[in-house]
Amino acid sequence: MSDDLIKVTYRLETPGDLAGLAAKIASDQSTGTFTDLPGETAAVKARCAARVLSLTPLPDAAVPSFPSAGGPFHRADVVIGYPLEAVGTDIAALMTITVGGVYAVRGLSGVRVIDFDLPPAFARHPGPQFGIDGSRALTNVYGRPIIGSIIKPALGLAPADTALMVKELCDAGVDFIKDDEKLMSPGYSPLAERIAAVMPVIDAHQQRTGKRVMYAWGISSADPDIMMQNHDLVVAAGGNAAVININSVGYGGMTYLRKRSQLCLHAHRNGWDILTRHPGLGMDFAAYGKIWRLLGVDQFQINGIAAKYWEPDESFVRSFHSCATPIFSAADRPLPVVGSGQWGGQAIETYARTGQTTDLMYLGGGGIHGHPGGAASGVAAIRQAWEAAVQGISLADYAKDHKALAQALEKFGPK
Amino acid sequence: MSDDLIKVTYRLETPGDLAGLAAKIASDQSTGTFTDLPGETAAVKARCAARVLSLTPLPDAAVPSFPSAGGPFHRADVVIGYPLEAVGTDIAALMTITVGGVYAVRGLSGVRVIDFDLPPAFARHPGPQFGIDGSRALTNVYGRPIIGSIIKPALGLAPADTALMVKELCDAGVDFIKDDEKLMSPGYSPLAERIAAVMPVIDAHQQRTGKRVMYAWGISSADPDIMMQNHDLVVAAGGNAAVININSVGYGGMTYLRKRSQLCLHAHRNGWDILTRHPGLGMDFAAYGKIWRLLGVDQFQINGIAAKYWEPDESFVRSFHSCATPIFSAADRPLPVVGSGQWGGQAIETYARTGQTTDLMYLGGGGIHGHPGGAASGVAAIRQAWEAAVQGISLADYAKDHKALAQALEKFGPK
Repeated sequence: MSDDLIKVTYRLETPGDLAGLAAKIASDQSTGTFTDLPGETAAVKARCAARVLSLTPLPDAAVPSFPSAGGPFHRADVVIGYPLEAVGTDIAALMTITVGGVYAVRGLSGVRVIDFDLPPAFARHPGPQFGIDGSRALTNVYGRPIIGSIIKPALGLAPADTALMVKELCDAGVDFIKDDEKLMSPGYSPLAERIAAVMPVIDAHQQRTGKRVMYAWGISSADPDIMMQNHDLVVAAGGNAAVININSVGYGGMTYLRKRSQLCLHAHRNGWDILTRHPGLGMDFAAYGKIWRLLGVDQFQINGIAAKYWEPDESFVRSFHSCATPIFSAADRPLPVVGSGQWGGQAIETYARTGQTTDLMYLGGGGIHGHPGGAASGVAAIRQAWEAAVQGISLADYAKDHKALAQALEKFGPK
Repeated sequence: MSDDLIKVTYRLETPGDLAGLAAKIASDQSTGTFTDLPGETAAVKARCAARVLSLTPLPDAAVPSFPSAGGPFHRADVVIGYPLEAVGTDIAALMTITVGGVYAVRGLSGVRVIDFDLPPAFARHPGPQFGIDGSRALTNVYGRPIIGSIIKPALGLAPADTALMVKELCDAGVDFIKDDEKLMSPGYSPLAERIAAVMPVIDAHQQRTGKRVMYAWGISSADPDIMMQNHDLVVAAGGNAAVININSVGYGGMTYLRKRSQLCLHAHRNGWDILTRHPGLGMDFAAYGKIWRLLGVDQFQINGIAAKYWEPDESFVRSFHSCATPIFSAADRPLPVVGSGQWGGQAIETYARTGQTTDLMYLGGGGIHGHPGGAASGVAAIRQAWEAAVQGISLADYAKDHKALAQALEKFGPK
């Protein structure tokens, strides 16, 4: 009855016995404790006991992921099946039972959650309200990436200054603008005042050009009531999107919002890095992303090629493919948001390594604002770079008769 | 104006230059991006720029915390000050700005958040509703630890079976009983049915003995609406406590609940281990615990001496002292909950290393259920062990005329 099993793949590492460790996890995370109990009967075990479904050995590691004595450190990918009956479909239960406790098990020198294989009952979760199709419909951008920018500097601009920058970006031709994830509603730029300053710029641009630029507002709050008030302010002003710092609002904040949301939810996974940066510890994006997609992420920031942060390109590419893969249906795919240090120069490699798709958002912050020809040239350079990528032309060749791209290459390209 | 600064202490590790890395973090996490920007003016920087307040070198590490080339790996405790104006007091903003992004910085071979020093404005958060005093008042236990137990097996018992075990534990003399953190509202034991089966047992015990046993119900859900429905079911039945899997509901779930809660909130930090188990990565409990205390945790599970999980005793002791230290006032101290593998044998060392206090809850699961004389003897053994601890008598001596303790020592003690 695999339909009734939640299958979780763990990469386990231990100086001890792998099979024994796997069996201990299956026991600890369902019916067991540290000593035999009169109540742990055969009937209870049959109803709720988790069990090891497979153990695929990997090469030993010389260095342990958690500092540990002994060695060598044996590794394996282990799949444990949890009866749906024992867990249910609540994400809090899933994470508590199949993830939280596993990180605490004694005798591990490393543990990483690789993936969840969830039974169809989990399809009850709402998933994205807008996703790829909705993001395209709201921006009216088809056949190329949605091009976005971020208000910079991240912190410190008064609402009137933000509005000036929004005007510049609208005039520059962006499809999407977002508050930096660090900007929510600080004293110097309360959300209500920022909305009051910025929305007229977006409205005026639409009246003049017919183009409605999507603006994602930093509505995150640890208090769901305040987040909903923020959401309602955006909706009342005619806004259509929001930046959600998913780890900083938590599953509860996200669930509460999604049930009531009229906005396209652009997820920033700020804080996730500590869960994934050590390859032997934590969680793969494949697992992490699935949970947040089920909860309703529409657009998912996943860095990009040559990002300014630590993340290697291979990790970004895996995240992209994970986003592009349905969990239960095509509608649960979020729009991948490619950002961080992007200026167009990564378009060709991004296109080549992500399945030659343009179903993505491409975000430039400093790459647009810092373009020597100004923001309009920054946007143009990115569009030109993507044209080159899709047409299979090198950036250097395409830059010969595309000045904005040429300037970007000169400033941001390899020296 | 230190009242207006949020001071965060990070343990940084890098094969490169520590001072440069610290300065980069302060810039990235406030006004900076990867290239110079026209808008990052002196006025903006003055309003919002974070700055390095101190850098205290530590000995180099030979092995990097994140796998990294080069070495040696320089380490320091770095304090960065963030203007309150730039962040505000929302926990989502605090975590996004001062923690989330820091984990992503390139060039780090390790990063651990050691502590938050928060300005008085953060005292606006509700903090514990019950805490130590409220927990004592609800259980009417004074002058000794509140002794609790956990329903085991963790998963699989039908409500009627849980009720039988509750009866046994009430009769055994416990002050507190909790659902295992893995038990919320699965199909075989929906919360409403469990409450209907168990509360009459607690009521009957009170009528017979005058003692109201505190029962903490597994009300956690990733959906705050459902968590509140669960909360209301408990309140309607006369219950007084709940187990909250704080990481699995998130800041949003906790905040939403605390604003509306009539229950004593017993926090299980399931999942936290991946944030703290590697000493060079993640977060100390001192920092983590403060956030959740501000949000309203009344009772905080922090493992114990010789716990069955990975956590070393020193880490537990530090967590205990952190819980016992006020953030803004004595009322924001949660009741420390000492558990995991406890059976009384750890009472003397616990008492000695935590400041000779009995302001704690001492939880026995298998140590009570698995006592050879039955649960009543398990509870008696724990009470006797604490009597010995407070009186400065060894367990072996005290066991000479205390049979329950003698049996526990024989079964669970050092062989």
